[in-house]
Amino acid sequence: MMQLRPVHMKIAVVGGTGHCGRGFILHWSREHDIIIGSRKAEKAEKYSEEIMGYLGDHGVKAEVAGMDNESAIASSDLVVLAVPYRFVESVTKDLEESYSDQIVISLIVPMSRVEDHFEYTPPPQGSAAVLVKDLLPSTVKNVSAFHTISYTVFQDLDRTLSGDVVICGDDMASKEVVADLVRDIKNLRTLDGGPLKMAAQVEGLTPLLLNISRLNNIKDAGISVIEG
Amino acid sequence: MMQLRPVHMKIAVVGGTGHCGRGFILHWSREHDIIIGSRKAEKAEKYSEEIMGYLGDHGVKAEVAGMDNESAIASSDLVVLAVPYRFVESVTKDLEESYSDQIVISLIVPMSRVEDHFEYTPPPQGSAAVLVKDLLPSTVKNVSAFHTISYTVFQDLDRTLSGDVVICGDDMASKEVVADLVRDIKNLRTLDGGPLKMAAQVEGLTPLLLNISRLNNIKDAGISVIEG
Repeated sequence: MMQLRPVHMKIAVVGGTGHCGRGFILHWSREHDIIIGSRKAEKAEKYSEEIMGYLGDHGVKAEVAGMDNESAIASSDLVVLAVPYRFVESVTKDLEESYSDQIVISLIVPMSRVEDHFEYTPPPQGSAAVLVKDLLPSTVKNVSAFHTISYTVFQDLDRTLSGDVVICGDDMASKEVVADLVRDIKNLRTLDGGPLKMAAQVEGLTPLLLNISRLNNIKDAGISVIEG
Repeated sequence: MMQLRPVHMKIAVVGGTGHCGRGFILHWSREHDIIIGSRKAEKAEKYSEEIMGYLGDHGVKAEVAGMDNESAIASSDLVVLAVPYRFVESVTKDLEESYSDQIVISLIVPMSRVEDHFEYTPPPQGSAAVLVKDLLPSTVKNVSAFHTISYTVFQDLDRTLSGDVVICGDDMASKEVVADLVRDIKNLRTLDGGPLKMAAQVEGLTPLLLNISRLNNIKDAGISVIEG
């Protein structure tokens, strides 16, 4: 049976005013409706003005909305959780009534700095992605992605990202939707990383890449899976 | 102060008659003394004959010895533990009297097959590398490496490996020795992955790469860290 995929989606970027959320807004606002979510609606609205200005300067005419997280999530088909690990409960469990059957992308990485390096510090569930799944209603479709790209490059429309985005999840149709969204971003390749449980191995790549970057003087490190 | 590095080393490949050990013997026997270790000396001796034949067919004239694991380890400067995870105790704790101050490279990955995919199943210590360290005398220098290369390509002198070898360990001098050994293998790049504790994130790449390989039809997958 042929699968029909949504061409035009409503995408809520929760934590959209932060470092990690910006790239999604910039890259996906050409083709999709973006709703920036923040704890305070005014902050999201103000940021949406700024980002529409930046987009305009880059020749992109797009409407970007700003709302509080609850409204952003409730209005969307797909939610990007672009928040630091410490906010994981406040954007899932605490807002569970805003969720229905969205696809939820977690790019959250539990990690901490120990002396001069970063370590991966997952919760007992094994990964942030599985924790998110446990905290959200079972009607939501959980996908894990975007742990292995440079957010510095991602949030700069004058630069071109490269590398692989590894997508993990248990629902193949949702993974396909996310893979299509990755393909909307010039030059990125999408790879199926298997079930959501494998997200632990992909999340762990973020601290590893940060350390490799510093120790080997590789700027804005990403990853590419190569054929032998 | 200038560091002096051993140019010509005595390298024991424990589990050298198996799938993962073969590549080290083939690639390092040009420049170093290789001792194949096995539980039975005769098996190692027989395999050394076979491998010297294969090397000769490829224009490499090298002496490769075969011994039981105890003798191989005791005779060496550096030990490669090329055994499956289930043998980790039998080549460390059970042979601890053979070890003195060698550099020990662990490429061991604790993983298991669950339905159609592989999962990383580390011990309570967090990784095989840290378990190996805990099981060996404290005079040994532990290094973790070679988890992200294709062993199919590695054991075939007619093919050229590519990609990155991520080296983890707490002793910088030992990591430098291993990095030099990686450079002896044509086309491989070596990356410092940080302290031994980070080995968990590198070991986890093996099952992830096996799954990515199957799901995305990428043959003999390896990894390359790219600059953004």
